[in-house]
Amino acid sequence: MNIAVAQSGGPTCAINASLAGVFSEASINSGIDKIYGSINGIEGVINNHLVEMSSIIKSNKDLELLKLTPSTVLGSCRYKLPDSETNREVYEKIISCFKKNDIDVFFYIGGNDSMDTVYKLSEYFSRNNVDVKVIGIPKTIDNDLMCTDHTPGFGSAAKYVAATIQEIARDSSVYSVKSVTIVEIMGRDAGWLTASTCVLKANDETAPHLIYLPETPFSVERFLEDVRRMLTEHKGVIVAVSEGLKLSGGEYAAEDFQSGRDDPFGHKYLSGIGKCLENIVRDEIGCKVRSIELNVMQRCASHMASKTDIDESVRIGEEAVKAAMSGVTGKMMAFERVSDRPYFSRITTVDAKDVANHERLFPKEWINNQGNNVTAHALDYFLPLIQGEVDVFMENGMPVHLKIPNWF
Amino acid sequence: MNIAVAQSGGPTCAINASLAGVFSEASINSGIDKIYGSINGIEGVINNHLVEMSSIIKSNKDLELLKLTPSTVLGSCRYKLPDSETNREVYEKIISCFKKNDIDVFFYIGGNDSMDTVYKLSEYFSRNNVDVKVIGIPKTIDNDLMCTDHTPGFGSAAKYVAATIQEIARDSSVYSVKSVTIVEIMGRDAGWLTASTCVLKANDETAPHLIYLPETPFSVERFLEDVRRMLTEHKGVIVAVSEGLKLSGGEYAAEDFQSGRDDPFGHKYLSGIGKCLENIVRDEIGCKVRSIELNVMQRCASHMASKTDIDESVRIGEEAVKAAMSGVTGKMMAFERVSDRPYFSRITTVDAKDVANHERLFPKEWINNQGNNVTAHALDYFLPLIQGEVDVFMENGMPVHLKIPNWF
Repeated sequence: MNIAVAQSGGPTCAINASLAGVFSEASINSGIDKIYGSINGIEGVINNHLVEMSSIIKSNKDLELLKLTPSTVLGSCRYKLPDSETNREVYEKIISCFKKNDIDVFFYIGGNDSMDTVYKLSEYFSRNNVDVKVIGIPKTIDNDLMCTDHTPGFGSAAKYVAATIQEIARDSSVYSVKSVTIVEIMGRDAGWLTASTCVLKANDETAPHLIYLPETPFSVERFLEDVRRMLTEHKGVIVAVSEGLKLSGGEYAAEDFQSGRDDPFGHKYLSGIGKCLENIVRDEIGCKVRSIELNVMQRCASHMASKTDIDESVRIGEEAVKAAMSGVTGKMMAFERVSDRPYFSRITTVDAKDVANHERLFPKEWINNQGNNVTAHALDYFLPLIQGEVDVFMENGMPVHLKIPNWF
Repeated sequence: MNIAVAQSGGPTCAINASLAGVFSEASINSGIDKIYGSINGIEGVINNHLVEMSSIIKSNKDLELLKLTPSTVLGSCRYKLPDSETNREVYEKIISCFKKNDIDVFFYIGGNDSMDTVYKLSEYFSRNNVDVKVIGIPKTIDNDLMCTDHTPGFGSAAKYVAATIQEIARDSSVYSVKSVTIVEIMGRDAGWLTASTCVLKANDETAPHLIYLPETPFSVERFLEDVRRMLTEHKGVIVAVSEGLKLSGGEYAAEDFQSGRDDPFGHKYLSGIGKCLENIVRDEIGCKVRSIELNVMQRCASHMASKTDIDESVRIGEEAVKAAMSGVTGKMMAFERVSDRPYFSRITTVDAKDVANHERLFPKEWINNQGNNVTAHALDYFLPLIQGEVDVFMENGMPVHLKIPNWF
């Protein structure tokens, strides 16, 4: 029998590590012949655009490089599978590809949209007596998937963001004048990554001094009060904000602050919440202020990956192969935390249906009463996920990645 | 005798390493008693705000942590010393501080403004028979100081920027749609840091596909032609641009593209060249486009420092102490490159006067004819400066810095 694996959704530092886990476990399983990679997620299956993984990973060194190569070596997609009632054709294309290539198991590494695909395919196959197993492997820096303690890719993003905020805090404290620095962190609806900056407390850092999440309605007045108070205590005030801060009505704050207005070029003004709050602080408080967008670096800075995250991401890929070989289908692999200290988690399977199209928000009970920071429970939760440093392979003073072939 | 040391100008990853070099060399020199640090550059001397360095660095571990702590542990300033003809008072305050504290040597770690201070002070002291030696130690991520092959802090910034562009290139290549990513890099007048992204060629990376520097007049038409051509060859086109790109008339491009216009809040539209070019590509080419500002991270990402840079920065601090003890004054310590391969450079002294208030631009002969990339000579120059990785001390999964005391 052959298997196929694909990657979907936004890039992370760890999505290739899970691919490496699937590949290495499948390689040593005598029941598996060929390991196919589908180019650009499920679209590669629909279009019968597969490559043999052995043409990408040719040595153990390649395998090790792959584990620390950010982004998706097989490409990605944002394709949402239609309902089989309205569109059977695409399902039949998928079955045709699997039959043509003798593929009995399909692994889909992705977020909640991908788990929707896993669920729909496994249901369709079961109803139509197609004997192909479908297994989901989670990934997202947003950490917002249901039914799992955390998601592969999140720990590495959190580690990079924490280290970077610490460096920004040092940088912002050199002049004698007081200043505010607003750091905008990814997270449209779930504030996990922004909240994770609390890990700096474990090293007695004072930054970030304020943390605002999409889970708490944002008030400009309270924000300005908070900043003013912090300026009396700290020279360089560091504020961590989720890109998706929302007002009490539920609308995105950044959109409201600039609603309907065009920029000087006639474009819709596209700045994020960081730039908005920078302008507000400059207008209302008048102190030195800067905003910083961590942009895509927070999801691709594999040079600062968490060893715990990368190791777990490989392991969950390996376990997915074992689960499939024991007959599991329609499930997502998941982490179940057994203890914080010492940290121990085990890998289980959960129904893909329960993950599909849901979002797990940051727990309200881990947000302080003022809505401007998180509690000690959050620190206990986050800290294990950023532990350990990866051994980056360097050449000429730069990290080496497994280069993405030019096939898509 | 006692000595004093101060830090000035914008933060870098290496300015504390030079401070560590001064401290450790002075500590083992039996001719030197107390080592003072001046808080916030020369302003600390003027205001008699000195601390004993031994109150900051209490152990060898502190010394090692200091070498990898970004920013300035003694604070910084942007103070420009007035001419002594127009303002003797400030010079007398400085002399008074030095006399009161038995300070016979003053080390100033900084850029060309700081070398102006070194020159003016040494001239004044010499004319007025004040026996205090003044020595400058270079630093700047801009690499734009005269009379030295390169500047401490530059190699670390270059290493971080290269690694980050490589990660961004991976990240930008996952979807099947073509895209352009514009990375804005520090450098108002000198394009060294932007040009240094060519080091990725040494590892057969194709990114960045285009490099634009302030040294070549920028043309939007040629830029659009270049981008269109690169889009036929690459899926994810990466463009490295200096923040200070200039039009043929010499005015900053970003200012011209948005001259006189206000943003939706009534502020002067303050976006940089990256956002400007993003808008232009979106309007004129219509493809997926993103701009990324590396912001202060490029000058403070000590977790990705160049070992060559940090080691040299320590060494130039040590050599400054030796030079002062042999009677040198009014000089800046400098690097003179002996060979590229193997890389070897030695430390010399140059007249601070020749460095003060000048800028060393990126050589025109290292820019290609099209003005959109750099030559192989540039690669030979840059590559040695980013070599080697530092051994970051980690605790709880995060880098540990020597914490800046709360005295300023």
